[in-house]
Amino acid sequence: MVKVALDAMGGDHAPEETVKGAVEAAKTGGREVVLVGDEGRIRAALRGADLPIVHCTQAIDMDEHPGAAYRRKKDSSIVVGLNLVKKGEVSAFVSAGNSGAVMASSLFVLGRLGGAERPALGTVFPTASGKAFILDVGANADCRPGHLLQFAIMGSIYMEKVFGLRAPRVGILSVGEEETKGNQLVLESHPLLKQSGLNFVGNVEGKDVPKGIADVVVTDGFTGNVAIKVTEGISEFLLGMVKEAIASRLRYKLAGLVLKPALKLAAKRLDYTEYGGAPLLGVDGVSIVAHGRSNAKAIASALQVAGHAVEVGLVEALKQGLRERKTIEENGGISHGTPD
Amino acid sequence: MVKVALDAMGGDHAPEETVKGAVEAAKTGGREVVLVGDEGRIRAALRGADLPIVHCTQAIDMDEHPGAAYRRKKDSSIVVGLNLVKKGEVSAFVSAGNSGAVMASSLFVLGRLGGAERPALGTVFPTASGKAFILDVGANADCRPGHLLQFAIMGSIYMEKVFGLRAPRVGILSVGEEETKGNQLVLESHPLLKQSGLNFVGNVEGKDVPKGIADVVVTDGFTGNVAIKVTEGISEFLLGMVKEAIASRLRYKLAGLVLKPALKLAAKRLDYTEYGGAPLLGVDGVSIVAHGRSNAKAIASALQVAGHAVEVGLVEALKQGLRERKTIEENGGISHGTPD
Repeated sequence: MVKVALDAMGGDHAPEETVKGAVEAAKTGGREVVLVGDEGRIRAALRGADLPIVHCTQAIDMDEHPGAAYRRKKDSSIVVGLNLVKKGEVSAFVSAGNSGAVMASSLFVLGRLGGAERPALGTVFPTASGKAFILDVGANADCRPGHLLQFAIMGSIYMEKVFGLRAPRVGILSVGEEETKGNQLVLESHPLLKQSGLNFVGNVEGKDVPKGIADVVVTDGFTGNVAIKVTEGISEFLLGMVKEAIASRLRYKLAGLVLKPALKLAAKRLDYTEYGGAPLLGVDGVSIVAHGRSNAKAIASALQVAGHAVEVGLVEALKQGLRERKTIEENGGISHGTPD
Repeated sequence: MVKVALDAMGGDHAPEETVKGAVEAAKTGGREVVLVGDEGRIRAALRGADLPIVHCTQAIDMDEHPGAAYRRKKDSSIVVGLNLVKKGEVSAFVSAGNSGAVMASSLFVLGRLGGAERPALGTVFPTASGKAFILDVGANADCRPGHLLQFAIMGSIYMEKVFGLRAPRVGILSVGEEETKGNQLVLESHPLLKQSGLNFVGNVEGKDVPKGIADVVVTDGFTGNVAIKVTEGISEFLLGMVKEAIASRLRYKLAGLVLKPALKLAAKRLDYTEYGGAPLLGVDGVSIVAHGRSNAKAIASALQVAGHAVEVGLVEALKQGLRERKTIEENGGISHGTPD
């Protein structure tokens, strides 16, 4: 059974929701969950349930500076949890806490994966045809073309291993479909992706991502973060307006009651709690960043994804993929086109 | 009466919808509209209505290279229309055609506004509290901090003049609220905006733009374009899912019929046709880029905004605002804080 450490103290609703999510995942998901944090508070939240606890005395706040927090709080739930992975006592780590601190600490504690220049945070984006994996969504605000190439390789492997997709279609987020459209970074990354041997489908516009025209969408961490946060904001705004409209008249309210299950189904497709958090790819271990607002369901789902990533051997596959790429580069590139 | 030239040949539904929109604006909006394009096709679309036509023999296609199209097609509806502004025969220009070509041609024909380093495309974004003006959304894929400062000045003047807002709140799009969050461009632009004398409210996250926490949101043209296109894509996706859910069962369909006006009201808030196109700020004249998919209503609304921009003296105000800023810079900056 895969053992996953959970930062019990991380997130807006910790430790109540984190602990509840852990209990759920342990009960139904076949995961062994180790809770990391303040033992007294965790025990209270467990309400008699029995899960292993690793006690620690500190917690990193949501607004602390990532690097500074790592240095000053070595006995925090984030750093202690990641050290359990490092020491091999668990196979993966999940946190809904300060995402910058999780990323920085993952890099410091687990180290970079051989060959990875920059770890990238990826997240699943709902699309008409299923899902797309978009990265980087926040680990690197400024990127170079070589980074985007590595993101493409890692994202491709992620979709292949975790979701069983053969030759995932890789696109680069840009302002037009044509090869000549984009900022300097996109224009310079385009030829690298074209020659990568990946199933590169070219530029993808923001409006086409939800249409599902690519399985992996690469971008710098600034643009990616803006894109997913705009999505979050506009979805809330839209659903809020629909609710407001329904509440405005009695007959709308009655019709709204009938429609409720249908609207819920639509909203569910955009619900981040369904998608199990964002994996940090490129560090030497499985580290998953869950949304700060995660409820128990979102935590359980992130623990599932973490366990699944271990079961399919994600880290080894990434290591191998990046190594192969390096060999190709050293041998002077590849000459064949993109595979079907 | 304000005279506006309309590119009758531009957009996915030209010339039928463009001409229809012009007739509408001329009838109800107190605008004199000059139709630019193929006279025969325009006359057919006019169906007997009587509007002035300036005939030209060329049209720029949606996928032509902006600069090359300008050079090769001097008798195109875009270039001819802009020349009418330049010669003072009309006061503004509107096109739903190739937006890159409209922007490039506007710059070539009208020239840069004194003091403006880079023209920027701005667009109105619906928010919970009304609207925010976001720029640049596509004129400059790569920007420097000084450009973002100018965008802030121009956006602020736009909201003040066109929408009558006093001391608009200006924010910079970023990946976190804290001053230390952002990419290199944001980090370097932040102090410039802080010292600008504008009503600067700091970093704005993508999820907070729809909440209306700033009236003007500045960003580079790449990020801005991705943000508005993601918004477009996700809105369509969401509304599509709601429709699909409603269509899935008979009783949902019936409830959907009752709710239709309420849902329409919600969708309307996100409907770009309500917002009248995107002004290109920083060129010496009023030039408005309408959405390529514009229907008659969107065209009429863009013609209204164009006329309004002329009536309030937008270009003069921008000129003066940029000049004042230059004087401040030459005198060694300002020492007072941001105004209330």
